Amino acid sequence: MQQLLENGTPWQLVETGLDPITIQNNETLFSLSNGHIGTRGSLEEAKYTPSYFHNEGTYMNGFHEISPINYSEWAFGYAANHQTTSPLPNAKQMRFAVNGEWFDLEHGTTSDHRRVLDLQKGLLTRHFIWENSQQDKVEVKIERFVSYDIPELLAQHIQIIPLTDGVELTFETILDDLEKLGKKKTEDEIKDPRVKNLSERLFTSEELTTETFPMLHIETPASQMHAIVGTAAQLRNNDGESEQIGLKETWTCHAKTEEPVVLERFAAYSSFYLEGNQTPAQTKVLRQILETALKIGYKKIKENHVQTMSQFWEKSDVVIEGDDHLQKGLRFNLFHLHQAAGRNGKTNMSAKGLTGPGYEGHYFWDTEMYMLPFFIYTQPEIAKQLLLYRHTILPKAKERAKTLSVSKGVLFPWRTINGEEASAYYPAGTAQFHINADIAHAVHTYSKATGDKDFAYNEGLEILIETARFWVAFGHYDALNEKAFVINGVTGPDEYTTMVNNNFYTNLMAKHNLDYAVEMVMESLADDRTASNDVLEKIGFELSELEEWTKASEAMFLPYDETRGLTKQDDSFFHKKLWDFEGTPKENHPLLLHYHPLAIYRYQVNKQADTVLAEFLFSWEFDSEQKQRDYAYYEDITTHDSSLSRSIFGIMASEIGDSKRAYNYFMDTALMDITDLQANTKDGVHAANMGGTWLSMVQGFARMRLYNDQLHFEPYLPEQWQKVSFNIQFHSSLFQVTITQEGTAYKLLEGEPVDIEHNGTALRIE
Amino acid sequence: MQQLLENGTPWQLVETGLDPITIQNNETLFSLSNGHIGTRGSLEEAKYTPSYFHNEGTYMNGFHEISPINYSEWAFGYAANHQTTSPLPNAKQMRFAVNGEWFDLEHGTTSDHRRVLDLQKGLLTRHFIWENSQQDKVEVKIERFVSYDIPELLAQHIQIIPLTDGVELTFETILDDLEKLGKKKTEDEIKDPRVKNLSERLFTSEELTTETFPMLHIETPASQMHAIVGTAAQLRNNDGESEQIGLKETWTCHAKTEEPVVLERFAAYSSFYLEGNQTPAQTKVLRQILETALKIGYKKIKENHVQTMSQFWEKSDVVIEGDDHLQKGLRFNLFHLHQAAGRNGKTNMSAKGLTGPGYEGHYFWDTEMYMLPFFIYTQPEIAKQLLLYRHTILPKAKERAKTLSVSKGVLFPWRTINGEEASAYYPAGTAQFHINADIAHAVHTYSKATGDKDFAYNEGLEILIETARFWVAFGHYDALNEKAFVINGVTGPDEYTTMVNNNFYTNLMAKHNLDYAVEMVMESLADDRTASNDVLEKIGFELSELEEWTKASEAMFLPYDETRGLTKQDDSFFHKKLWDFEGTPKENHPLLLHYHPLAIYRYQVNKQADTVLAEFLFSWEFDSEQKQRDYAYYEDITTHDSSLSRSIFGIMASEIGDSKRAYNYFMDTALMDITDLQANTKDGVHAANMGGTWLSMVQGFARMRLYNDQLHFEPYLPEQWQKVSFNIQFHSSLFQVTITQEGTAYKLLEGEPVDIEHNGTALRIE
Repeated sequence: MQQLLENGTPWQLVETGLDPITIQNNETLFSLSNGHIGTRGSLEEAKYTPSYFHNEGTYMNGFHEISPINYSEWAFGYAANHQTTSPLPNAKQMRFAVNGEWFDLEHGTTSDHRRVLDLQKGLLTRHFIWENSQQDKVEVKIERFVSYDIPELLAQHIQIIPLTDGVELTFETILDDLEKLGKKKTEDEIKDPRVKNLSERLFTSEELTTETFPMLHIETPASQMHAIVGTAAQLRNNDGESEQIGLKETWTCHAKTEEPVVLERFAAYSSFYLEGNQTPAQTKVLRQILETALKIGYKKIKENHVQTMSQFWEKSDVVIEGDDHLQKGLRFNLFHLHQAAGRNGKTNMSAKGLTGPGYEGHYFWDTEMYMLPFFIYTQPEIAKQLLLYRHTILPKAKERAKTLSVSKGVLFPWRTINGEEASAYYPAGTAQFHINADIAHAVHTYSKATGDKDFAYNEGLEILIETARFWVAFGHYDALNEKAFVINGVTGPDEYTTMVNNNFYTNLMAKHNLDYAVEMVMESLADDRTASNDVLEKIGFELSELEEWTKASEAMFLPYDETRGLTKQDDSFFHKKLWDFEGTPKENHPLLLHYHPLAIYRYQVNKQADTVLAEFLFSWEFDSEQKQRDYAYYEDITTHDSSLSRSIFGIMASEIGDSKRAYNYFMDTALMDITDLQANTKDGVHAANMGGTWLSMVQGFARMRLYNDQLHFEPYLPEQWQKVSFNIQFHSSLFQVTITQEGTAYKLLEGEPVDIEHNGTALRIE
Repeated sequence: MQQLLENGTPWQLVETGLDPITIQNNETLFSLSNGHIGTRGSLEEAKYTPSYFHNEGTYMNGFHEISPINYSEWAFGYAANHQTTSPLPNAKQMRFAVNGEWFDLEHGTTSDHRRVLDLQKGLLTRHFIWENSQQDKVEVKIERFVSYDIPELLAQHIQIIPLTDGVELTFETILDDLEKLGKKKTEDEIKDPRVKNLSERLFTSEELTTETFPMLHIETPASQMHAIVGTAAQLRNNDGESEQIGLKETWTCHAKTEEPVVLERFAAYSSFYLEGNQTPAQTKVLRQILETALKIGYKKIKENHVQTMSQFWEKSDVVIEGDDHLQKGLRFNLFHLHQAAGRNGKTNMSAKGLTGPGYEGHYFWDTEMYMLPFFIYTQPEIAKQLLLYRHTILPKAKERAKTLSVSKGVLFPWRTINGEEASAYYPAGTAQFHINADIAHAVHTYSKATGDKDFAYNEGLEILIETARFWVAFGHYDALNEKAFVINGVTGPDEYTTMVNNNFYTNLMAKHNLDYAVEMVMESLADDRTASNDVLEKIGFELSELEEWTKASEAMFLPYDETRGLTKQDDSFFHKKLWDFEGTPKENHPLLLHYHPLAIYRYQVNKQADTVLAEFLFSWEFDSEQKQRDYAYYEDITTHDSSLSRSIFGIMASEIGDSKRAYNYFMDTALMDITDLQANTKDGVHAANMGGTWLSMVQGFARMRLYNDQLHFEPYLPEQWQKVSFNIQFHSSLFQVTITQEGTAYKLLEGEPVDIEHNGTALRIE
């Protein structure tokens, strides 16, 4: 995928030529989304040339089907259902004919084929010349975007310019309900656990024949979600004949040489399927959207979209001088991050965004720990919506804690869409109790970075308290050492070690979770806000809980090996044998595909950052020798078999002053998807790693930290670059940070002056 | 099921009356088996009266179907296939008509209905009077047995005595191929993981129409096992007309008052299905068996069977004076134990014997640790066959060790039929590595108790060495303490605690496993036997291994809490919180059905004996205060949610001199199935618990131990009994032990004098 990096400006991914594999692979990279709908970068006529087609994939955030998880040996409390993001009817499908001969890349002669993903404008364009077997020749320009202004809307603009005389053009669009993937299921088939198989259609569909536009009512049989999909199209500057048969529309017209014919096409996917069966209301809204779109026209809608995109970049761009490829890779990552985030307070961010079927569309801790910081510091209103989603699933998290026999508090699901646990393997799923503290940490960071007291003292407070309650109910004072508050039977972030006692990361995060709850209750009480009083009353808060949390936090056991001066990943980690890396053939990586869990778990070997991640998050609590020793030890035993690992090691390399390692890790992660480093980009982008890129820049090289209610910076620049510049939103202020080899400049762009610490010295940005 | 205990002699289980539920429940208890075939105690005409019918169930030991295990989250090395004992065609089915009116319990008037399981003779008999709607009256006596002399043979004897005049009798037999349970499967259906569903037929069948007798060739589609089932029947003392249509035969005759008409019927299930498709050979053998049976006749075959049964009881009976119910319960348990054991060196003992579909017919550690001692000390030739089965699966166990990345030795499957791991939940399956040491322990006990050097220095030696090799490859010297050999990431017998480091039971068993290997190699070398030399050469034994095993055994880490003087179940056990028994409602037992594994594992709570089991097996290595302290501690936290628990606590109560507890535990376990204590006897008997009964008597009350190559006794009797008497086979000698309140008498019955220790003093039984 080197051409993507080399061609075009640092704002563009440019694909040229007709290699089917390249075109298939770029489907993921060329995905467009607005956090509500996402659609992969497949060709318009892909259906008619399977060799250019991997997976059309259009998705709506949160729209999913459920099916029972089949356990060969069931146990009480196991996650009950798969949750699978349902692929939706394809409304991008279009083809055209020149004098009756249908175009595709395998017929006639196509030349100058070129696709461009414009990151700045959020447009995917396609251009080529086609000559059919009769030597009739046309130039074709196709453009598409998913609107940030109208969440339901996908817009397409197809322009054909005849280059030869006397051409009859035919356009054909279909709203493909994916019927050929499967029939309407029988009652028995609906119960079939294999429904999660992604090659199957996960919905039933019904054509809304009373509507003027091609429209479908789709329904997921088991999860009972209802949505409407519709399309509308019109020829511009030409009076062709049109015909509509069901979901298929055809336009035929005669066109003169050099006189463009344009088909504008809009597709809309309804947006309130999370609120029960609202079919008539959704249909009405969709009809209006489509009517309005036809009326306003493609050009105007696009202008608004591009404008919105420019506002995003104005706040969120990271500029780097000295490496254009990297500049492009960075923007590509931020572009996809921005696309992936749910914005309605009811949805979140899938591990793959809305770019592919990987991980069934589930939300993980990836959101809070890898992706959210970017939003908190550049698009806090989106960060808030993502956290509000967690608040909406609190009732289910409370149920889950009960199912796990934890008497108080909540337990967030390890992976989920609808708020219920969907992990079918609890040792690396539900046992990752740290998800609770991860979310609490994000709530705290958001609250401190934005000063958003409305959230902090309301939904935020409730999350902090309920998660704190969980820890004191789940952990206990060691039966052999009453002074130690211990947390047993958990799995930390490192999934190559499961079901241990006192995972350092988990315990440290839980300790801060307890502290956050105490701090936020105290603050809110001092502030005497009605909202927080309401919350405290609603959840039966008692003042004695503060003492309980403080005591547990102070007594929190943090395993440490005094002899070697090393932080222990957990109680028993250092007793294990070291993994034999030398005896492990290259082809046996990633280990999880080549070794039984029982073979992996009993060794000192890490899939990803664990202790090192904890020391990044609270780096000011550890002295620099400690961080160096731990970094050296754990790096040696880490495989980075998780895509979440490298960015953290890169950041901590910056922290301990190892700029070479920091740079290398960064370069590995920044271009992960464009270069298909993990060899599975076809299933979707690695959104958390994209977040990790921003973290690497801002928390790695600029070494930004938030503690004591203040931002701290200790920036430096790898020798390979001349300049890096990014913006930070803090409370109501926006400021720019520019790092060069000579030093760092801070510039206030909006709002009040901001007091920070720069290299340990107080500094006011004004 | 109180009537079973109260009616009849201590040799009989007697069921009277027509209660459908009672008749259904007794199907399991009235099962007949010879270790090759087993058939449940269903009524002959059950098919025609579903209300009297739970599960007809006829099985052949080892005859099973496989189907892929479906994992929602697969990982490397997971067990690939379910293995499910296949129910077989029903050859017991028979009904009769009186003057054209078919008999069943719901038509006409049945009186004096009575079924008797004769434990002494191994016969199930049925007797009743039936009057049809025309007042025609007959007396019916039906008897069946499964032959110990001809493993393939099930014999039935149906006698009808007209009590009224001028009766026409019709007999109808069917070889039911279970077709109505399911059709011949399609290619797709064969791959369906749900094939393991036991309500389905697991084989395809083909009628052998060229044979004279009704015969079926059956085949399991996936595991590719082939077997033949055939029946033959004849009227005795009456010349009736007979007709055969396919698998159905009919006899019609006129019978005079008080003149019995007898139908003798034989069914045969071929026995060498484990050796590939031997259809023609099997057919021939079966034909001969059936022809011979008809020729010899029921009476003679039965005489031989009863004779064989009496030989069994002569050696194996445990006589108890002072409690007739208990006497019956004990015999019932020994009867079923004896029935369950495979005798051909290629099969083993299912956890449910051949009495029901529970646990899919799998073999577990139950065999070696609970059932085998009974055979070792009363029927050593059967014990040997059971251990030879383990030897046949060594190649697969070697593969399994490799899959688990263990460089040397073997790993026996936790549950299996065909030698491959069939556990779909590895934390309580494959992780129970102690299975290796359990089998080694049984090999050692068998070898020492029988003096069978042919086995000990050949198959036994190979098992001991390969298991010892496993431990040194699997365990390691603690990275923080080079003097400690540790075994991490294992699950002990207590399945309420999984994936721990240094489970005391596992480590102690592994230590002995290592010692056994050293001992047996030294002995065999000293003996200079060709067999052992061959074995040592075949498996590449090197003398340096002896040192390796000795060193590991000596360094074996056995976790101990010095402060409290308690043996630790594992490294972290005592750090856990105690389970809140008071806060656990009664209906929440067994815990595994009401709490998530993550909720159970993090508490100090036992499903079954674990540390206490270890201290029973090597009781002479622990001082009596230690055993008392550990017993008291672990009893308090044990739920006995496993049927394997109570017998061990009972034995250890005897060991520590608590006769009251010992008696109570014993009474709970001895009658477990007759009283349906676990409420699931309908799925099959609890064979391991039955073995536990014998253990409780011989190793509990008589406190028999084998160490230093010698038997040790310290007998006592609970005050409730007057006398207990049992036999022990040791090497080539058989002696009787009789315990009364006054003392113990030892009497040599066969062979050379035996030197034992009685209450610490040497004693020669002669």
